[in-house]
Amino acid sequence: MNRILILGAGLSSSTLISYLLDNAKEHNWNVRVGDLSIETAEKKVRNSDNGEAFLFDVQDKEQTYFEVGNADVVVSMLPAFLHYRVAQACVDLKKHMVTASYVSDEIRNLNKAAKEAGIAILNELGVDPGIDHMSAMKEIDHIKADGGEIISFKSSTGGLVAPEYDNNPWNYKFTWNPRNVVLAGQGVSKFIEDGRLKYIPYQRLFERNEKAKVLEAGEFEVYANRDSLAYREAYGLKDIRTMLRGTMRRPGFIEAWNIFVQLGMTDDTYKIKIEEGTTWADYIRCFLEENDEFTIQENLCAYLGVDIHSKIMDKLRWLGVFSNKLITLKEGSPAEILQSLLSEKWKLEEDDKDMIVMQHEFIYTKEKETHKTISSLVVEGENQIHTAMSITVGMPVAIAVKKLMLNEFTMTGVHIPTHPDMYLPILAELAEHGIKFVEDRFVILSSDS
Amino acid sequence: MNRILILGAGLSSSTLISYLLDNAKEHNWNVRVGDLSIETAEKKVRNSDNGEAFLFDVQDKEQTYFEVGNADVVVSMLPAFLHYRVAQACVDLKKHMVTASYVSDEIRNLNKAAKEAGIAILNELGVDPGIDHMSAMKEIDHIKADGGEIISFKSSTGGLVAPEYDNNPWNYKFTWNPRNVVLAGQGVSKFIEDGRLKYIPYQRLFERNEKAKVLEAGEFEVYANRDSLAYREAYGLKDIRTMLRGTMRRPGFIEAWNIFVQLGMTDDTYKIKIEEGTTWADYIRCFLEENDEFTIQENLCAYLGVDIHSKIMDKLRWLGVFSNKLITLKEGSPAEILQSLLSEKWKLEEDDKDMIVMQHEFIYTKEKETHKTISSLVVEGENQIHTAMSITVGMPVAIAVKKLMLNEFTMTGVHIPTHPDMYLPILAELAEHGIKFVEDRFVILSSDS
Repeated sequence: MNRILILGAGLSSSTLISYLLDNAKEHNWNVRVGDLSIETAEKKVRNSDNGEAFLFDVQDKEQTYFEVGNADVVVSMLPAFLHYRVAQACVDLKKHMVTASYVSDEIRNLNKAAKEAGIAILNELGVDPGIDHMSAMKEIDHIKADGGEIISFKSSTGGLVAPEYDNNPWNYKFTWNPRNVVLAGQGVSKFIEDGRLKYIPYQRLFERNEKAKVLEAGEFEVYANRDSLAYREAYGLKDIRTMLRGTMRRPGFIEAWNIFVQLGMTDDTYKIKIEEGTTWADYIRCFLEENDEFTIQENLCAYLGVDIHSKIMDKLRWLGVFSNKLITLKEGSPAEILQSLLSEKWKLEEDDKDMIVMQHEFIYTKEKETHKTISSLVVEGENQIHTAMSITVGMPVAIAVKKLMLNEFTMTGVHIPTHPDMYLPILAELAEHGIKFVEDRFVILSSDS
Repeated sequence: MNRILILGAGLSSSTLISYLLDNAKEHNWNVRVGDLSIETAEKKVRNSDNGEAFLFDVQDKEQTYFEVGNADVVVSMLPAFLHYRVAQACVDLKKHMVTASYVSDEIRNLNKAAKEAGIAILNELGVDPGIDHMSAMKEIDHIKADGGEIISFKSSTGGLVAPEYDNNPWNYKFTWNPRNVVLAGQGVSKFIEDGRLKYIPYQRLFERNEKAKVLEAGEFEVYANRDSLAYREAYGLKDIRTMLRGTMRRPGFIEAWNIFVQLGMTDDTYKIKIEEGTTWADYIRCFLEENDEFTIQENLCAYLGVDIHSKIMDKLRWLGVFSNKLITLKEGSPAEILQSLLSEKWKLEEDDKDMIVMQHEFIYTKEKETHKTISSLVVEGENQIHTAMSITVGMPVAIAVKKLMLNEFTMTGVHIPTHPDMYLPILAELAEHGIKFVEDRFVILSSDS
C-alpha cells in the first residue's frame, strides 16, 4: 500500500498533511490532497515530491469513486455531514477510511458492510473527540485492571488563546469555528451526578459551572457539554454514579456569555433584517424592555440583575455592544449578528498562538480506599499553521493512517479509539511528539479515616 | 347549490355542524360529515334528515376527490397540515372551501389557481385566528374612515374555565389542545413597542407580562404571542408604533408556569425514559442542582430565587410535583411528561363550562386628541359539546359556509376575513347569536391638556 488520499485541506488538515508528507519518503507513499480550492490544497502540499494537490468536489460522485478507487487509505477532513458519501465509496471499493469526527448513525450502520469488505472505518480520531477518548480509556482500563471501581468521571476540554497572547477581558479568542462557539450548548445538556440523571436547559447552562486548575495553564471554569450519558456505554462505565463532560473557559467568561444567552442574542432560529445605520446600541435595545428613564446599560442591569460596575459589564462594554458602532450585516439570525462582532473582537492575531487544555478527573474505590486521579494535557500551537487545534486534531488521524498503511492496524468495521489496540500505539507516538498527559494521583479517603 | 361537505368531526366541529343542520331544512341542504371515526361523525350528525355521516380518510386521494367532487362547499376541520390536500382537490374540481386555520404558504400560493377556477378559499374563520381579525378590522376601518391615525394596537385572547367552575389555584383548566398549551411560546416572540422591534426569547417570555381587565370576566395577565409583526401588513397598519398580540391567563398563572420553563420541563426536543417507580419528586430533582442539605422544595426555591411560601410554590405543590405520586408515562419528552400530569389536574370536569375572552386596545390620534378604544368579548360555553371554543370557532365558519351556499359571498381566490365584505355580515350574524363585542371609548389626551 502506498497511496494516501486526503479529502479536505482546511486549517485542521495542516499538521496531518505535514506529518504524512514528512513520513512519505521513507515509506514510498504518495499523498494526494483534494480540496474545493486548488490553492488551499497546493498550499498544504507545498512542493513535496511525494504529494499532489488536486481540485476535488465530493458532490461529484464519479470523481469521488475514481479517487477512492486509486487510494489505499482515505482520510475525510470534509464537513462531518459529507463523510458518509466517502464512507460509502470506501465500502464499495474496499478502502480503509479515517475521520476526526463523531460517528454518525449512518456510518455506524456501515459496520457490517465494512467488515465484509475487510476494511476499517476509524472515527473520532481528533482531539475532542479523539485524544479525550484515548487518554480516558487508558486510565479507565488501568484502574479496572488494578481492581479499582470507578465511581466518578469528569472530563473537559478547552480551545483557547495561549496565556502569553491572552490580552482581552474575555480571556478568549476564536481558535476554531466561531459559529460552533456561538451556538454551543443549545438544546439540553445531560449528565449524571451521584446516581441521578440531570438535565440542564440552555437558559440555565451557563449559570452552572465548576472550577478547574490545569498544570501551568492556570484556572478555568467548566460548563457541561450536551450528552455526557452516552459515554457511559462507550467507556464501559455503565453503573458509574457521576459522569460529566464539559468545555473549559477562563474564569468570568461563562457568566458574561450568559448575558447573550439570556437576552436571546444567540438564537439561530429566525432572521432579523438590519436597517442601514443601525448601531449596536440600537440593536441591543430590541432584546430589552423599553424604558426611557434608564440608559441602555442601566436597563440591561435592571432586567438581568447585574451590577453595572461588574466584570460582566466590563466585558460587554469592551465588545462595544452599547456603542454607536454600526452593525455590518444586512440580515442574519441573532447568532450570526453576534458572531459578526465577535469575529472581529475575538480574532486570533497573526502572531498569536492558541492552546488546547484537557483534563480528566477519575474517582475510584479500591480495597476500601477512595482514590482520585487527575490527568491533564496542555498543548500550545507552534504558529498560525500548526495551531494547537491543528496539531491535536491532525496527529492522531495521521498516526492512525500510518498504522493502517503499515498494516499495524488490522481491525475491520467501524471503530472509535476506545480499545487498547488503537489507543496504546497512538498515545505512545503522541507522547513522542510532546502530546503527553500528566497524572496526579491522590488517596482522598482511606479505610482508617 | 345544496351539498355541504364537512371533513373532520372533532370537538371543534360540534357547533359548526349543528348550525348547518339547523339551517339545512329551510335551504334544502345536504350536510355530509366525514371523519376517520364513523362514530364521531355519527354523533355529530345525530339522526338529522339533512345529514349523513361517513368514514373518511384524507390520505385516500380517490375518496377525497370523489367527495369533494360531489359537494358545493367544502369545510376542512382536519389538522391544519392536511388542509392543502383538500384545497388542491377544491381547486381541481372548482369547489369553494372554508377553514378555521392560519393560511399556510402552500395554500396562499393557490390564490391564482383558485381565482381562475372561480372559487373562494376562505381561511382563518375561527376565533383566533378569525373573530380577532374581524372585530379588529371593523374598528380599524372605522377609526381610519373617521380620520384617526392608529398608533398602538394590542390584542389578546384566552381560552379558560368559566368563573363559576374556576376552582384550582392555577385558575386554569384545559379547554383546548393541552399539547399546544404546554409548548406555547417556544421560539421567539416578536412585537413592536414605541417604534422599536422587540424580540423576547422563550426563557424570558413569561417574566414579561401585562395586566388586563375584561368586562365582568375580571382580571387577567397577558404574555406575548409569537409573531405580532406580520399583522402590521395584514391589518393595513404598516407604520404603527406599537403592536402586540398576546395570550390571556388569570393573574399568577404566568409567573408559576415560568418555573417549568426555567427548569426545562417544557422541552419537547428530547426523550426521557422513566424507570418504574419514579415519583414526581424524583423526576423534578433531575432539573435541579444536586444538594443534600436542602429539601427538594428548598432546593428549587434557592435555584430559581422563589419564596417557599409564595403563591407560585402553592401552585406547584397543588400539582403534586414534589410528591411521591408515580409518573405514569414510560417514556416521553419533558413536555409530554408534564402534560401527562396537567391533563389530569387541569381536566375540565363533566359539568364545567369554558370561556373565551378577547380584548383589543386601540390608541389613535385625531384632530390633536389622543383616543383609546377598548373592545371586549366574553363568551361562555353552553355545555361540554357546545363549548365556548366550539361556538366561537364553529360559528364564523358556519356563517361563511351559509353565505357561500346562498351566493351572498362572491369573492374568488384565497382570503382571510380582513375585508368588510366578509367581516361585516359575519360579525352581524355573530352578534345575533350573542357573540358581541362591547366597546369603551375614551379621550386620553386632549389638545387643551
